[in-house]
Amino acid sequence: MNLDQITSPTLLLDKTKCLDNINFMARKAKKHGLLFRPHFKTHQSRIIGNWFKRAGISKIAVSSVRMAEYFAHEDWKDITIAFPVNIREIDHINSLAEEIQLNLTIENLESALFLKKELLYPVDFFIKIDTGYKRTGISFDQFEVIDQILSELKNSKMLNFKGFLCHAGNTYQAKDSDEVLEIHTDSLKKLTTLKQHYIKNYPDITISIGDTPSCSIAEDFADVDEIRPGNFIFYDLMQETIGVCDQEQIAVVMACPVIAKHPNRKEVIVHGGAVHFSKEYIEINKQKIYGKMASLKESGWSSDYDNCYLTKVSQEHGTLKVTDSVLKNIQVGDLIGILPVHSCLTANLMKEYLSDDDEIIDHL
Amino acid sequence: MNLDQITSPTLLLDKTKCLDNINFMARKAKKHGLLFRPHFKTHQSRIIGNWFKRAGISKIAVSSVRMAEYFAHEDWKDITIAFPVNIREIDHINSLAEEIQLNLTIENLESALFLKKELLYPVDFFIKIDTGYKRTGISFDQFEVIDQILSELKNSKMLNFKGFLCHAGNTYQAKDSDEVLEIHTDSLKKLTTLKQHYIKNYPDITISIGDTPSCSIAEDFADVDEIRPGNFIFYDLMQETIGVCDQEQIAVVMACPVIAKHPNRKEVIVHGGAVHFSKEYIEINKQKIYGKMASLKESGWSSDYDNCYLTKVSQEHGTLKVTDSVLKNIQVGDLIGILPVHSCLTANLMKEYLSDDDEIIDHL
Repeated sequence: MNLDQITSPTLLLDKTKCLDNINFMARKAKKHGLLFRPHFKTHQSRIIGNWFKRAGISKIAVSSVRMAEYFAHEDWKDITIAFPVNIREIDHINSLAEEIQLNLTIENLESALFLKKELLYPVDFFIKIDTGYKRTGISFDQFEVIDQILSELKNSKMLNFKGFLCHAGNTYQAKDSDEVLEIHTDSLKKLTTLKQHYIKNYPDITISIGDTPSCSIAEDFADVDEIRPGNFIFYDLMQETIGVCDQEQIAVVMACPVIAKHPNRKEVIVHGGAVHFSKEYIEINKQKIYGKMASLKESGWSSDYDNCYLTKVSQEHGTLKVTDSVLKNIQVGDLIGILPVHSCLTANLMKEYLSDDDEIIDHL
Repeated sequence: MNLDQITSPTLLLDKTKCLDNINFMARKAKKHGLLFRPHFKTHQSRIIGNWFKRAGISKIAVSSVRMAEYFAHEDWKDITIAFPVNIREIDHINSLAEEIQLNLTIENLESALFLKKELLYPVDFFIKIDTGYKRTGISFDQFEVIDQILSELKNSKMLNFKGFLCHAGNTYQAKDSDEVLEIHTDSLKKLTTLKQHYIKNYPDITISIGDTPSCSIAEDFADVDEIRPGNFIFYDLMQETIGVCDQEQIAVVMACPVIAKHPNRKEVIVHGGAVHFSKEYIEINKQKIYGKMASLKESGWSSDYDNCYLTKVSQEHGTLKVTDSVLKNIQVGDLIGILPVHSCLTANLMKEYLSDDDEIIDHL
């Protein structure tokens, strides 16, 4: 990688790490007999999408109609919008349903009735199930509500019941990998109850789960049929902190120019702020952390700076708290690497990547 | 405004409020004999820039070289980059300096020496002063460091000393307007000390301050010559919370489709998350708040929902905590207004606005 060409905050991407992350998850899915339907909301990139194609992936998940349109245009023919139907987008949904195998997510009767009336082309649908995250979804044991939706849509020619979709997003708030596995195990138990209840009438139903933490470290998937992890393509500090990945698996790093040094405060100020990293943070010893320092080399990056963190971000500025010995070796005008806390939000802000072979990788 | 056309999260802009905010600040500057150099990092819009032009503004501030290039291209001829020089961008800086009256911000000797050597066209420069925010800048009383920079650049044909630039960004963390004024008064005192020290040798120096809180509510500007507020063009919940603006002055609101209702949790789930609002929050009764509910009408919006806040955001989802009576009147598929916590970050994510006369307003 030619670092001299970099003059402003740039999101670097290690292609080898990305491919390793893809292969890791594809192998894992295969080992457990799961359909691997990667979520593309993390990278949102046509080019990275092609890397998945080359790994044999043909079915994907996205989190908005707009993202579905972008990837449908890139010849993805089987897309799940893993976000409850926004009925105001019915025209776009119909266009997509005409063109590809579209799979929708339904979590309430109102949307079901609307779709029953307004859908012009056939789709598969998942019912969104809540196993404890409490964001969207019908609780796994509310059979009555589920039955009502299934009954309303039973004779619809446009809406084919595919199964239950769950996102145990509460694993992202876990303190460690044990807690991730606890949440996952609890979620599995609930999904098994659900599957057993419906399997007789719907022998082909799919149980789909989505969170990167569980998909990364669990070795038991019980009655699950499909996994939809997204973040694993890059991972990030948040995932590392909860023990879901090693730092070496983090596949993106922000290259930030040093604009000032304040030795009395042990701080280095970089160009790289909230419009680059987002304001997502983790807490380490009650200190908000927005990123972790890494050293950049032409051949890649490494981070063995144990106490060098991005501790403040404003719109364009980032404040890196460092040790005296690190500070000594940093000069104004240097380029510093910073591992992001939440790669999905960082990628969404940056809108492009620079790969280690100096290719510009696009982003929706 | 035609609300029926809105199908996904859309940042609505009330043009009358924007123009009122511009006029308010322009009048204030005039009243106090200050040069009004608005900071364009908040709106980052060519079209909104033109509204300032029509109000007689010809000098602006921006926070990056890229933003300077965008506005220079729009025929702005006097631009201050109110962000310490990033020396890696010297080629872009030279191109800008050739084309317009460029004003740079210097906060350390290293950058000064670099510019002295590498600048090909004349610029004015400000020395960045820290009066207590502790982000960037030389402390107001470190005359020795300032003198060293001035001495190094004294005979440079390319670098003309313009004055001192300060951003009391600590006012954004104030708990109320009294604390804003305390910080402002303290900052003024320090800037007066500085000006008095240098005025004999530099009789034309400009003292420039930038924070919207002080510029909005202060009535004493002492030795200040120029103000560079940015956020005031839209204001936001953060500014309202510290008593810097009224809710009626907030000129942007996000229109979000309702995708689910969870009456047992008194929650409404909207399409509108961290990729729309950012993860900036304020705290009200120890609860993180990412936005405040408003009702949308064709004629504009109003917010008299005292206890209806956006309390969680993930990538695309927003969770709105509401009262029972409000919940009753919300249906899946409705459009809900949400006032943003930090309009600069929200605008930067959305990349465009829809004005109340149905015009699409661009963003860099």
